[in-house]
Amino acid sequence: MSHSRSDVVEHALDVLDRYGLADLSMRRLAADLDVRASALYWHFPSKQALLAAVADEVLRRGDRPVDGSWEDQVRGYAHALRDAMLAYRDGGELVAAAHAFGLGEVDPGARLEEILGDPVAAATVLYFVLGHVTDEQLALQAGSAGAIDDDPLARADTFADGLAIVVAGIAAQNVLSTSSRTGAHSTTGR
Amino acid sequence: MSHSRSDVVEHALDVLDRYGLADLSMRRLAADLDVRASALYWHFPSKQALLAAVADEVLRRGDRPVDGSWEDQVRGYAHALRDAMLAYRDGGELVAAAHAFGLGEVDPGARLEEILGDPVAAATVLYFVLGHVTDEQLALQAGSAGAIDDDPLARADTFADGLAIVVAGIAAQNVLSTSSRTGAHSTTGR
Repeated sequence: MSHSRSDVVEHALDVLDRYGLADLSMRRLAADLDVRASALYWHFPSKQALLAAVADEVLRRGDRPVDGSWEDQVRGYAHALRDAMLAYRDGGELVAAAHAFGLGEVDPGARLEEILGDPVAAATVLYFVLGHVTDEQLALQAGSAGAIDDDPLARADTFADGLAIVVAGIAAQNVLSTSSRTGAHSTTGR
Repeated sequence: MSHSRSDVVEHALDVLDRYGLADLSMRRLAADLDVRASALYWHFPSKQALLAAVADEVLRRGDRPVDGSWEDQVRGYAHALRDAMLAYRDGGELVAAAHAFGLGEVDPGARLEEILGDPVAAATVLYFVLGHVTDEQLALQAGSAGAIDDDPLARADTFADGLAIVVAGIAAQNVLSTSSRTGAHSTTGR
């Protein structure tokens, strides 16, 4: 039986959502799809490459246009990213792993850098988002398994308020770097 | 054969560092220590409780005193936290999981809240640190396994510079909240 690359990704998303990242292996996918593992390696040279393709799909499905000031765009994109990862079990860990390996086609860091024009500011937003979403997702899953008590609403507030701190920090550093470069004082609206 | 709680944690740290978090199971530990799994459950009611105890030990070993201004203390503690997690394979993921489950005795969020006096500011620093360290640790491990190219030095710079953005954001929000509460203008030294 023959499967397209997108069939395999689709099936991998289903395995991810039902059983979690730990159960997403090439062997399992091959068995489920009733093909030899070598057929999967024809599409994906490694498990890392497969995970990157699955992370790309998670991010593409959650993507939405953002506009307005740079602050609005950062907030809009960060919330879209959070929603995209929360939509699939272990989505945060999956996207974090794909980012660390640098094998994906959809690069949230590059997208944030387009908005912010600065790689460190972009990385800072991304690390806050990844750290936050991984934490809330692990807590949600443990909460739904009855392992711990959790309050999802409290975590949603922390996301918006923590993001406001990161955005304020970028604005403050922009003021500093602009005034140190030009000697002029610039202000950022809030 | 009988093992103390600290024997089990010590052995678990060794398994973590040699084989990684995915291989750290109650069954494996029991087999390695030549005891029945029930003997481990006498010390730890669940795998989550064991992981929390191991995370506590990682954090205790990496702890060091911090002093100076609140900015100095945040920077000092964030760097200590990073070093503690980088000292063990998958240390970042382990501490992130223990934090999400809320079962540990050593609570980095509470420590940051003591320094900062604000739970959201503390959480923002912590999520940045967890997101950053998990990313660099996954990349380092994949890099040392030959799976990807990585530049550890570039990531160390991103940590310090990204932390500076978060600290600047907290300072900026302190100014706003102080002036909105009292009507007075306060300044923060840089």
